[in-house]
Amino acid sequence: MKKLNVGLIGYGFMGRTHSNAFRKVNNFFDLEYKPVLRAICARSEDKAIDFADKWGYESVETDWRALIARKDIDLIDIATPNNSHAEIAIAAAKAGKMIMCEKPLSMDGPEGKKMVAAVEKAKVPNMVWYNYRRVPAVTLAKQLIDEGKLGKIFHYRAKFLQDWTISPELPQGGAGLWRLDAKVAGSGVTGDLLAHCIDTAVWLNGSIDKVNAMTETFIKERKHTETGKVQKVQIDDACAFLARFNNGSLATFESTRYARGHKALYTFEINGEKGSLAWDLHDLHRLQYFNYADEGRVRGWRNIHVTDGDQPYMKNWWVPGLQIGYEHTFVHQVADFIQGLSSGKPASPTFRDALETQYVCDAVLKSARTQKWEKVPKK
Amino acid sequence: MKKLNVGLIGYGFMGRTHSNAFRKVNNFFDLEYKPVLRAICARSEDKAIDFADKWGYESVETDWRALIARKDIDLIDIATPNNSHAEIAIAAAKAGKMIMCEKPLSMDGPEGKKMVAAVEKAKVPNMVWYNYRRVPAVTLAKQLIDEGKLGKIFHYRAKFLQDWTISPELPQGGAGLWRLDAKVAGSGVTGDLLAHCIDTAVWLNGSIDKVNAMTETFIKERKHTETGKVQKVQIDDACAFLARFNNGSLATFESTRYARGHKALYTFEINGEKGSLAWDLHDLHRLQYFNYADEGRVRGWRNIHVTDGDQPYMKNWWVPGLQIGYEHTFVHQVADFIQGLSSGKPASPTFRDALETQYVCDAVLKSARTQKWEKVPKK
Amino acid sequence: MKKLNVGLIGYGFMGRTHSNAFRKVNNFFDLEYKPVLRAICARSEDKAIDFADKWGYESVETDWRALIARKDIDLIDIATPNNSHAEIAIAAAKAGKMIMCEKPLSMDGPEGKKMVAAVEKAKVPNMVWYNYRRVPAVTLAKQLIDEGKLGKIFHYRAKFLQDWTISPELPQGGAGLWRLDAKVAGSGVTGDLLAHCIDTAVWLNGSIDKVNAMTETFIKERKHTETGKVQKVQIDDACAFLARFNNGSLATFESTRYARGHKALYTFEINGEKGSLAWDLHDLHRLQYFNYADEGRVRGWRNIHVTDGDQPYMKNWWVPGLQIGYEHTFVHQVADFIQGLSSGKPASPTFRDALETQYVCDAVLKSARTQKWEKVPKK
Amino acid sequence: MKKLNVGLIGYGFMGRTHSNAFRKVNNFFDLEYKPVLRAICARSEDKAIDFADKWGYESVETDWRALIARKDIDLIDIATPNNSHAEIAIAAAKAGKMIMCEKPLSMDGPEGKKMVAAVEKAKVPNMVWYNYRRVPAVTLAKQLIDEGKLGKIFHYRAKFLQDWTISPELPQGGAGLWRLDAKVAGSGVTGDLLAHCIDTAVWLNGSIDKVNAMTETFIKERKHTETGKVQKVQIDDACAFLARFNNGSLATFESTRYARGHKALYTFEINGEKGSLAWDLHDLHRLQYFNYADEGRVRGWRNIHVTDGDQPYMKNWWVPGLQIGYEHTFVHQVADFIQGLSSGKPASPTFRDALETQYVCDAVLKSARTQKWEKVPKK
Repeated sequence: MKKLNVGLIGYGFMGRTHSNAFRKVNNFFDLEYKPVLRAICARSEDKAIDFADKWGYESVETDWRALIARKDIDLIDIATPNNSHAEIAIAAAKAGKMIMCEKPLSMDGPEGKKMVAAVEKAKVPNMVWYNYRRVPAVTLAKQLIDEGKLGKIFHYRAKFLQDWTISPELPQGGAGLWRLDAKVAGSGVTGDLLAHCIDTAVWLNGSIDKVNAMTETFIKERKHTETGKVQKVQIDDACAFLARFNNGSLATFESTRYARGHKALYTFEINGEKGSLAWDLHDLHRLQYFNYADEGRVRGWRNIHVTDGDQPYMKNWWVPGLQIGYEHTFVHQVADFIQGLSSGKPASPTFRDALETQYVCDAVLKSARTQKWEKVPKK
Repeated sequence: MKKLNVGLIGYGFMGRTHSNAFRKVNNFFDLEYKPVLRAICARSEDKAIDFADKWGYESVETDWRALIARKDIDLIDIATPNNSHAEIAIAAAKAGKMIMCEKPLSMDGPEGKKMVAAVEKAKVPNMVWYNYRRVPAVTLAKQLIDEGKLGKIFHYRAKFLQDWTISPELPQGGAGLWRLDAKVAGSGVTGDLLAHCIDTAVWLNGSIDKVNAMTETFIKERKHTETGKVQKVQIDDACAFLARFNNGSLATFESTRYARGHKALYTFEINGEKGSLAWDLHDLHRLQYFNYADEGRVRGWRNIHVTDGDQPYMKNWWVPGLQIGYEHTFVHQVADFIQGLSSGKPASPTFRDALETQYVCDAVLKSARTQKWEKVPKK
Repeated sequence: MKKLNVGLIGYGFMGRTHSNAFRKVNNFFDLEYKPVLRAICARSEDKAIDFADKWGYESVETDWRALIARKDIDLIDIATPNNSHAEIAIAAAKAGKMIMCEKPLSMDGPEGKKMVAAVEKAKVPNMVWYNYRRVPAVTLAKQLIDEGKLGKIFHYRAKFLQDWTISPELPQGGAGLWRLDAKVAGSGVTGDLLAHCIDTAVWLNGSIDKVNAMTETFIKERKHTETGKVQKVQIDDACAFLARFNNGSLATFESTRYARGHKALYTFEINGEKGSLAWDLHDLHRLQYFNYADEGRVRGWRNIHVTDGDQPYMKNWWVPGLQIGYEHTFVHQVADFIQGLSSGKPASPTFRDALETQYVCDAVLKSARTQKWEKVPKK
Repeated sequence: MKKLNVGLIGYGFMGRTHSNAFRKVNNFFDLEYKPVLRAICARSEDKAIDFADKWGYESVETDWRALIARKDIDLIDIATPNNSHAEIAIAAAKAGKMIMCEKPLSMDGPEGKKMVAAVEKAKVPNMVWYNYRRVPAVTLAKQLIDEGKLGKIFHYRAKFLQDWTISPELPQGGAGLWRLDAKVAGSGVTGDLLAHCIDTAVWLNGSIDKVNAMTETFIKERKHTETGKVQKVQIDDACAFLARFNNGSLATFESTRYARGHKALYTFEINGEKGSLAWDLHDLHRLQYFNYADEGRVRGWRNIHVTDGDQPYMKNWWVPGLQIGYEHTFVHQVADFIQGLSSGKPASPTFRDALETQYVCDAVLKSARTQKWEKVPKK
């Protein structure tokens, strides 16, 4: 088996999900390459060493430029906050490294466009970790839609609801809380949560033509962990938008961190002439399917427990009825990336694919400012 | 339209459900007969008058023998506690009256047998109010099973769980509480709740060959409302039994009034070679259906919202999506009874049909005493 | 008991729900008045007679003006298509009749304003049949919100999804299909379905400040049943809008008749600082409640089976665990209307209350045309 | 960190779940020991080598006696079919090895008793892989019960339903199908599935006093993969039993491989005076909890999404709302075993704990033969 030498940058929540995926993938998937955990890079050497110990990285770096310069690294995995993605990715591309980049791709569309140019010029394999495409139930939805099981699509609706920032005592900035700091995160729920919804939506239902959004920041000021001062909050706490897809279907999207009772409730539903599909992240191993072709008297939403060998990815895991969880989506992402290396057909979403989501996010945030419908630029 | 002159005996919970059904049935069903509420009979004249006022009965009686003697009554509806069913029904049959009798038919099988003999000798139309057969979802289950949609049956399981007698302060006996008094009720959950489960089971899955039961009385003594004294509780608070049906399938049944959190959770599930069905009373307008013939990848339990015109009884009500409730099962029962009068094919369950449930209950209670498997006598 | 002499106009779906409510209400509620079904009015005498037979109306009329002129009628119940509400209601008010009017109040806000003026000038009791306020679970939600159980509100979302007009073969106009004919219905899903969502939302969460909508007509032309010709469809098949409430909360609303798999799925959810509530019409007897004050380890959405005596309206029906259905909301509406007569505190929604929904609908339809945010006029 | 040198015997489904657990545990839990995958033992050297490659075992053995004899092995992990557990475990104990043994402990109680004697004499740490105790939702149930949240217990009910052996074409015996071969498996669903139900039940609700069972073998003969002949099937395809616990509560248990539509539906529910709990394996990350102390009007089953940091095990995984799956229960088992080594308080279930389940299974199978209530022997 060939080695795929990985250098990870970032040791937070996403550093953990990626590391776990690299470690597990060959236990469950037969692949041509085996990821080898060569180095973890973090500004704090102590934290890098702790992380390396816990996850089995062979070495540590404290300067990502040094990591990129290393000859023994094939793939740079970017798991840092959003405002550093572009610089690292462009440098890694120039150095000829493969790149896996945490979502969202970039702070905005123009920045993302440069990243796409860089990886395409360098011709390096690249991917963005929009992991929810790899939930087996979501992949099954994609198969059914592509086979025409839903017919003409009328409606798409998606939500991503959380409730972790309701307390005004929660500060902004710093480890774990950079998602509240616009300078680091770029935006609030739009880039963090709606980006997931948009990525899935575009994958399942094609491109979005235009959007009309509203955003809100419920808590106007929060203490900043770095300055110690109460500062204006500049991210969007909530965002909802109407959209029209190129295929003529209508959509509603909503995300918030103020929906009491929902921890990470990403849901989508798609309604077509022949059938409908619905899914939610809180029971990610299930897909709801309504098939109008079923006999009328016994028609009903089918509650599909996606744990069987004939369903996407599942023959690699346990036995029917035994569910997998969140982390497995990252394992699937690595498996697909490696299969893309072998086949020469890059696994999605590439940087270019992910740029589309960036453009939709830009249009959404612009619409919230202009209070008008905004067209999504072509990628 | 022909008149069907009704004389009701009893003004309790069941007096209300029956009266409502008689009043509503012609608003929704096209029938040859129209029930006319001629008289309500209760020992207390005041209560009879109040009830007559509320429900539109034309007259009151305080002696059920007088009611039965009246020429202007076609149908005697028995809605009294269990220990009076036999005497009233046998007298009504002798008087040539049609009879609708609240369930359970009788205090036990031998008593029920006499009732069957009386109505069959008198050749009067007769029915027992096992209303859950007339839940549209349950009737749909019956259709599917009879059409062979489930194939060979392997398993049946039913439960009826309540929680209203957990408090030791609750007395036994008297209005509303006669269900705790063995002299009036005959038994506890067996005749009250399991009788429903058994009636449905036998209807859907055929006769039961033998049973093996355990019963328990958790609160051993309760104050009796009539004597004012603390007396031994002689009913079964809980009963569970194993059963084997004649068709070779295995079953479990359970009922209790000590299942905290369940108000009236009657559920059944039936598993066959080709499919399965499940239903519960807390969402009575839904039927769960698993069809093994569906394509493997998208097989799942179908959650059928039984509110459409092609589903049993539903074309008579509102529009698709709008659910009916508990009381409508009684309306259906009256509609079916009347259609039986018109067609000459008596609607089920007749007294004879209901006698089978009585025999199963007897075997269950006997088994709880003998601690052995007991055969169900042939009806 | 005093008599409340009812004259009904219209014999369709709503004529049935209202008649059933008038007939049942005194069986279950202790009230000062008893509705008496004096007359049913319909243009077709045959249909009026059939309906009178089925429901027990004492007489028939074929001209609603004649009905209004009758001295023996106290209350005019309007169950006709939308385009006749105003004329009838204004005439009835002038004649000093009480009025119950099917929703939506009017074809648009200006028309509704005249109706409000008429009933207020005449000082006649008046109400609009927004029946979903009287679902016990929805009334319970109202109680909890009014008691402050949710705290500050951040989000409201509502949907009303159907799928009955997907076929292009379905014609527009005529009996049962007037909802597709803009001249009769005023609008499509906005006045038909979103009006319900808006009425509930304003009741639960206060007034809406502004809206931003999109509408779509998926099937552009349909045969008209009256002309026999293929004509342009002028109603909205689908409508979604963003909204901001006066209390600072954000909302999304959506309705369509093209959501395959949903018959009448009206759902709402409201998220506050201290808790959240959710409800859906397909299981109308349940309320979902999340209480942040619960201990963290065992916090979860409570699935409340609203069938108990301490829950709104339910002590009047059966016993705990036994669900009521759609029709009962109309019974509650009549009970509340009558209690309003007795107490002198009119039950909501009055015409004035319902006018607010009309103004929101107007703003929604205007926004769909202007493609801008539109303020809701003050009622 | 100290090394815990593991020698695994068996490379099937359970060999995979255990190996995954050993590999992952230190990535997520801070522990004193780190499992090191020293050797995998299988009769087929090729298969052993393949497995070692896939999972990172340092060496292979083809004779388990040789494995046990190795000085560099601290812990023998038994993941072989049931009929070899006793011989291996007793030998491992004699060699002073720690032992983790796949469930069920043994072929029957007497055999299990010898195993208990062996490990207790040798004073070696020992555990049986009843992994469902380590589902966070199940562990949370245990906490709540132990804290008295349910009060006096009235009822326990458990089911384990599958549907994978319905086809008569399925052979018995051989890889993956040894569960149909009584010589290898000992029994059918009783030892395979009910053993899980019993282990959880005894853990949550204390010891079982007596049982009354029925078993069935629906397909009487199947081809044997080893002999190639059609042979009598000697396992139980289905088993249901009534039980009484020492604490006075009543129980029903059922398991089958003929419940069409259920892949691995292990469910339990427990009803106490103050509350109830329910759980099912198909949504293992959820716990249902009914708390009678909640205000009556808003009482309902709480649907607890067990993914938060204050819930058992979950602070070690991802962030709230992101579910784990089946495999994580094995990781928790290893973590608890290691914490038991550190603390000197052995994690449950030890061999002695698991022997109790064996005795219950023996009583169940005996009762099915004698058709009588059978007492469970004291462990």
